[in-house]
Amino acid sequence: MIRIPFEDVRLEFRRVLLTRDCPAEKADKVSYEMARNSLEGVYTHGVNRFARLIRNIDEGIVRVDVMPTVVNAFGAIENCDGHLGLGIVNASWAMDRSIQLAGQHGIGLVALRNTNHWLRAATYGYQAVEAGMAAICFGNTMPNMPAWGAVDSRIGNNPVTLAFPGPRGAVIVDMAMSQFSYGALESALLDGKQMPVDAGFDIQGRLTRDPAQVIASRRPLPAGYWKGSGLSFLLDVFASCISLGNSVCAIGRLPGDEHGLSQVFIAVHYRSIAPEKEADAILEDSLEDLLRSEKDKSTDRITWPGLRAIETREKNLAQGIPVDERVWTEIRALG
Amino acid sequence: MIRIPFEDVRLEFRRVLLTRDCPAEKADKVSYEMARNSLEGVYTHGVNRFARLIRNIDEGIVRVDVMPTVVNAFGAIENCDGHLGLGIVNASWAMDRSIQLAGQHGIGLVALRNTNHWLRAATYGYQAVEAGMAAICFGNTMPNMPAWGAVDSRIGNNPVTLAFPGPRGAVIVDMAMSQFSYGALESALLDGKQMPVDAGFDIQGRLTRDPAQVIASRRPLPAGYWKGSGLSFLLDVFASCISLGNSVCAIGRLPGDEHGLSQVFIAVHYRSIAPEKEADAILEDSLEDLLRSEKDKSTDRITWPGLRAIETREKNLAQGIPVDERVWTEIRALG
Repeated sequence: MIRIPFEDVRLEFRRVLLTRDCPAEKADKVSYEMARNSLEGVYTHGVNRFARLIRNIDEGIVRVDVMPTVVNAFGAIENCDGHLGLGIVNASWAMDRSIQLAGQHGIGLVALRNTNHWLRAATYGYQAVEAGMAAICFGNTMPNMPAWGAVDSRIGNNPVTLAFPGPRGAVIVDMAMSQFSYGALESALLDGKQMPVDAGFDIQGRLTRDPAQVIASRRPLPAGYWKGSGLSFLLDVFASCISLGNSVCAIGRLPGDEHGLSQVFIAVHYRSIAPEKEADAILEDSLEDLLRSEKDKSTDRITWPGLRAIETREKNLAQGIPVDERVWTEIRALG
Repeated sequence: MIRIPFEDVRLEFRRVLLTRDCPAEKADKVSYEMARNSLEGVYTHGVNRFARLIRNIDEGIVRVDVMPTVVNAFGAIENCDGHLGLGIVNASWAMDRSIQLAGQHGIGLVALRNTNHWLRAATYGYQAVEAGMAAICFGNTMPNMPAWGAVDSRIGNNPVTLAFPGPRGAVIVDMAMSQFSYGALESALLDGKQMPVDAGFDIQGRLTRDPAQVIASRRPLPAGYWKGSGLSFLLDVFASCISLGNSVCAIGRLPGDEHGLSQVFIAVHYRSIAPEKEADAILEDSLEDLLRSEKDKSTDRITWPGLRAIETREKNLAQGIPVDERVWTEIRALG
């Protein structure tokens, strides 16, 4: 493990993107957000995912030369076609439209089809928070998890983020519908560790914390067991039916790596009906109450949703982003 | 266990409500929806909860003589005061306003404060679906669950529903943020059963499926472990800060039984941008794919979210609603 300054990571990403004829403005955006993901501790969607993005560009399933277009619009809602553009660029564009609609109507919803992996869901929550708005965003994925009671993967570990502005920073959750990603399972397997809670099923259909068993059975656990299974299905229905785009099963029928996703971006201009000062006071009361929690023996402290990203950012800004040397060498070799 | 026809349950609820000076129209609505909850298999929020509602009316924390009023409005969003009225009446009123806003703007959001338990979250999802719209609704509760890593209950098992119209009926999830309710734990304890998956912590802080241990520790499990904990907090922040109402911790400071809740109702008039026929085809493809799942040995079949309610309704319409005789006797004695 080496540590690399944020700026060096960002500039290296930018250099590689420019070799793929990515317009400078898009290379700026994508390199900044992916470097920021690692900076704030979401390593799976930063440095560790960059080579795959470049591969997807080279395969032609992520296109650097397009921008989304609006298909249908009615008042505060729109559906748009992402034309298989860069996932981060498309999603930021869609969130920005949603924020504009919310500015006019109090709330906006933009559903985006034919887009690509947005990397970190929280990115678009933070984007709304910077505009003083709350956000609910979600999207679908390729089939990568069995429904509750099933053996074969037909639902997605669909990501969702909820974000709300607060005086201490964004209060935010960013979660996938699986309890653990395959990335987390593989990382624990390499380290010889068990997962801290149920991670999925073994080949016999028994719940297990053993990452090797879950990787072998291809049966990762929906978060909340049957609850995450049902919620995953509904998020997919919303995203695909409102955008008129691919559902999880339709994504599964496309050849090649995951692409052609559907996403929804909801921005809420709540300050138009709830003055900032009053809303902040309610939020601050809740945060203080949460932090008064009595912690159990195995926990070092209780945090609020969003704090760890702020702390990791500060640490990695000071010390550099921790990067696997082989991963960095691979990126440096891209050209 | 006895079986009672839906109409008899509804009329008995109505009779009792009228003895509390509940206006006839509200008594009609509340008795219908609570009887329907039991009819469709949500027994905890139907017959088994009715006596508590009457007690709450008698205590003065649920008022039968008020209707919500709009506080602030901007375009497609509003916040409203429920004046501690009947939870079902208030929530139906708010969902109806949200549907109207969505009809005008494509999407509507109504945040309601000072309201009471809406009983079954799905009720308002079905209400939107009957209007041809999709819905996302959620609300808060009294503190009844510790945050992840904590021992004392400071977050709520906040309910959320997502509903989408489909050719086979509403596709819908209705879930609380705890893996199991105290009602479910107590019921398993009475039957001498263990829960099928982790249900919470024992007094030593170890995960357990034993309902007696969880009831003793007062540490039920957030659905998805840390994920449900974070999501619960965010849902509360949205509901309380947009409505300018009570948060979970503020509800906990009110004297007496749970009351004064905050809720959010989002309706999406998606058909204004996604023609019904096209959206239905995408949904039907997803349903058929889900039903093609290979089931594991312990599962009798794979269903889609919403099917069981339809089937239970048909069965209970034909055979009568299964009711605990003591609970029914208690309701008959109310007057």
